[in-house]
Amino acid sequence: MSDWRTIGVLGGMGPAATVDFLQRLVAGVGAARDRDHPRVLVDSNPYVPDRNAARAGGPSPGPALAAMALGLVDAGAEVLAMPCNAAHGWAGDIVAAIAGRARFVSIVEAAVAAVGNARRVGILAVGATLDAGLYHAPLLARGIGIVDGDLAVVQPLVNRIKAGDTGAEVQSAMRAEALRLVTAGAEAIVAACTEVPLVLRQADLAVPLIDTSACLAMATLAAARR
Amino acid sequence: MSDWRTIGVLGGMGPAATVDFLQRLVAGVGAARDRDHPRVLVDSNPYVPDRNAARAGGPSPGPALAAMALGLVDAGAEVLAMPCNAAHGWAGDIVAAIAGRARFVSIVEAAVAAVGNARRVGILAVGATLDAGLYHAPLLARGIGIVDGDLAVVQPLVNRIKAGDTGAEVQSAMRAEALRLVTAGAEAIVAACTEVPLVLRQADLAVPLIDTSACLAMATLAAARR
Repeated sequence: MSDWRTIGVLGGMGPAATVDFLQRLVAGVGAARDRDHPRVLVDSNPYVPDRNAARAGGPSPGPALAAMALGLVDAGAEVLAMPCNAAHGWAGDIVAAIAGRARFVSIVEAAVAAVGNARRVGILAVGATLDAGLYHAPLLARGIGIVDGDLAVVQPLVNRIKAGDTGAEVQSAMRAEALRLVTAGAEAIVAACTEVPLVLRQADLAVPLIDTSACLAMATLAAARR
Repeated sequence: MSDWRTIGVLGGMGPAATVDFLQRLVAGVGAARDRDHPRVLVDSNPYVPDRNAARAGGPSPGPALAAMALGLVDAGAEVLAMPCNAAHGWAGDIVAAIAGRARFVSIVEAAVAAVGNARRVGILAVGATLDAGLYHAPLLARGIGIVDGDLAVVQPLVNRIKAGDTGAEVQSAMRAEALRLVTAGAEAIVAACTEVPLVLRQADLAVPLIDTSACLAMATLAAARR
């Protein structure tokens, strides 16, 4: 028997962020040989209904996510991870669908656990994540204050990253928005969208950067290790 | 209906090379929005029996690869790709298992088609690839001469890459071996192991580098486009 449970990844939201997450899983294992790695099943499905549009009354991504989760579990996945923050607004549909047959590792729980002693954090996220209060509820419950990123700034940058533009202009603009939140009192920045770490790194900031993709990768490996 | 057939990837041989291949698929699409990408199902299975050991009398990877292919096809994959050259020695088991239900895109055929006008090529590959003559047969059939890389040099470098070492020393040693083949008459170098492009780039060589991962990614996308 392997040292690892099989990992299932609900991906494609977006595809590049999923590959970035898979890279973090590989690097996080730090194995010397192929067979020291976990088996990883991935469903990179870019056709899941848009999370922001769903918040505005469009079709729910819930049924598609539930079907993907079931497919992964049927194929042998024992630990599920979804490298997309906004889609966690429908995590309940996933958990209900798999009915205890696998463990779903929440990106929100993994990231909130990494916030540490910050009294106020800045959130860089898209509309669906902000509207659902995915980070607001658990952070406020811990007495941590929040400064929201400006959706009018962040959403167009995320769209450009999804279109493959991770160049200097996008990096600079994302960093400027993060620094604005620091000036507004944020003692840590949560990259609460898996596209954000593709252009923003810890070296860009003097305060801690909570990289939700990295947090999810480490939490997933911890859950998968026997 | 999407513009794309669903792609299935038999991966994990090794895990980092699989992520590199997935990155090439994402970049190769060049899409502006998530939903312009293909759906990609991945089975990154690092427990497939070792290809080199199998050539030396160990258990065959064939049954595991056939089972992975069937699982991907059952989950909806219509086009299959396997970013591991050595495992193509068991491509026949995969093709037999899927029995026409999906198209298997061969990394060898994709790479040989990219050789162009070279009269003699150098092959950087592991033992299982060389022993099976995976590249020798189709290249010789086209009248193209071959200079084999030195297995005593290439195999330890591939092992180090699989252990996560893609540093300057490994890069330099792989480049030196490629240059030795050029000195021996190679007019192009085939990176006939998907770990090789993780440390060797076209900019390292004055002759064409046939990057088999890149060739497979482009051939897979071409086969998947409706």
